[in-house]
Amino acid sequence: MSKPRFRPQLSAALHLQARKYFRTLTSTMDFSSRLQTLTAQTEAALDTLVPALPADAPAGPARIHAAMRYSLQAGGKRLRPALALAAAGLAGPEAQANALPVAGALECIHTYSLIHDDLPCMDNDDLRRGRPTCHRAFDEATALLAGDALLAQAFLITAEAYANRPALAAALLRELARASSATRLVGGQMQDLLAERAGTATASELDFIHLNKTAALLEASLVCGGLVGSLPDAAITELRRAGRHLGLAFQIIDDVLDATAESTALGKTAGKDARAGKATYVSLHGLEASTRAAAEETTRARAALASLPGDASLLLGLADLMLTRQR
Amino acid sequence: MSKPRFRPQLSAALHLQARKYFRTLTSTMDFSSRLQTLTAQTEAALDTLVPALPADAPAGPARIHAAMRYSLQAGGKRLRPALALAAAGLAGPEAQANALPVAGALECIHTYSLIHDDLPCMDNDDLRRGRPTCHRAFDEATALLAGDALLAQAFLITAEAYANRPALAAALLRELARASSATRLVGGQMQDLLAERAGTATASELDFIHLNKTAALLEASLVCGGLVGSLPDAAITELRRAGRHLGLAFQIIDDVLDATAESTALGKTAGKDARAGKATYVSLHGLEASTRAAAEETTRARAALASLPGDASLLLGLADLMLTRQR
Repeated sequence: MSKPRFRPQLSAALHLQARKYFRTLTSTMDFSSRLQTLTAQTEAALDTLVPALPADAPAGPARIHAAMRYSLQAGGKRLRPALALAAAGLAGPEAQANALPVAGALECIHTYSLIHDDLPCMDNDDLRRGRPTCHRAFDEATALLAGDALLAQAFLITAEAYANRPALAAALLRELARASSATRLVGGQMQDLLAERAGTATASELDFIHLNKTAALLEASLVCGGLVGSLPDAAITELRRAGRHLGLAFQIIDDVLDATAESTALGKTAGKDARAGKATYVSLHGLEASTRAAAEETTRARAALASLPGDASLLLGLADLMLTRQR
Repeated sequence: MSKPRFRPQLSAALHLQARKYFRTLTSTMDFSSRLQTLTAQTEAALDTLVPALPADAPAGPARIHAAMRYSLQAGGKRLRPALALAAAGLAGPEAQANALPVAGALECIHTYSLIHDDLPCMDNDDLRRGRPTCHRAFDEATALLAGDALLAQAFLITAEAYANRPALAAALLRELARASSATRLVGGQMQDLLAERAGTATASELDFIHLNKTAALLEASLVCGGLVGSLPDAAITELRRAGRHLGLAFQIIDDVLDATAESTALGKTAGKDARAGKATYVSLHGLEASTRAAAEETTRARAALASLPGDASLLLGLADLMLTRQR
């Protein structure tokens, strides 16, 4: 009953297709076309790495996979996979195609964290990206288990896909485990919840939340891409640094958008944090200083990225996209 | 903020201590003394692999670690670590000591599954092993996150502890990921929930539940121990087979105990499944056939274990213990 046919796999055909498309990417192409290529291959990869189960599959796993896919396919920006693929791309299109499984794994971890964040005992959100949240579309127990399964799936995808390169597999799995751990992703989430309950947070507490709830997985995305590309240690260090600053920028911008944007453009309820009396970068530092801080963090990320070997234009484009995003 | 000091580690002193104690284990010693040695070293390992965080740690991670430790220290039987250590012990006391981290990781996965099972949207249990469940002792959000963190911690412990043996690390992480996946542990749990909602389950559905909700992690425990001991493939296959039969026996006995034992002896509410109209092995097959089936599965497990290279007496003792347990 440990059915090999249920193991997540990227087919050889999909790998070849991705490599073919990635070979067409040149630094003279416009950024949005390049990003679109990365995103399209990520979507194709996710569809096979978390497949719909066949009709004869047991009902339990079939329902879990359906809920995992529902949330995975809610139309995210695929930012973490794009960062991983762009970092691997520094080593060429073959490495970039090789990074597709771990890129999918990173999106699984991100999606798991969103599903659990939305649950009634956490943020109790009904909508995510304009659609019912997982526990609204299914039920609370199914959403809980689908989140659990997505976290496990991230490790499974990575362990299976890189099994023939055990040193790489071990390094990737360690990076994913560190980013997901009690002191990083989960710890940041808990700290955020404590701050919300207290109705206040110090600047350093807010930094801790941003560095762990958000930056940890962005760092891991860049680092995993670099590991697949066998980049030298110095480059991995710069990727980690860039991820940290991008994560801070990303979260500050999130707070700015929550304070300024319309719900429609945002795809979720705007002004929610302020009304909840939640400490945000904007409530602590003001709108002007926040906008400036986001730009500064982006500049630091760009500096780290620009120091990398190879053509970093795709990574720099992603950094700019994160600064100028409207949702 | 990705603080190395928060990374789970088994100290060299603890490793040496475990090896020293494991060297004293001989097949002429009585079984319960040997088991007690395994359990004591497991407790010591868990205490350092999921440490209480220092006073200056951020509040979020500190709270998560406190909740993880609360549930880890609720006095479980440490059956999964014992199976892993006993399997590794086939290769000697050094391998047995080397298996301590993954033994701890297996207990983390088991504990995560219990915390999430107990949540209000799942079984809504107030007591576990005679103590308030994690969400009663803390709160629902903390319990949800502590469960998430324990799953991540299992991968983190394993990735860190075996980093200098990357092929072993990759194999262990793959085994843990498979056992935890949507088609095994989580899928079995979902199937169980669906059966409970339907108020009925076929014999094959119940087998699926037992094989995945319970046997998956017992299989993984034996296999991980065997992998740490670098046992030959044929032995790994027998360990997997033994784990499967032990898992079936274990779950049938669980159903038998639920139907026959007193709540006090059980440490949880007895007769709960029957009152919930839940399909159990006993309700489907009757008490007599269930008792016989448990013994048969144990016999099959014993046969697989007896075929292993080395002294399997500890493993055989564990199989018997599982058959004759009263809770």
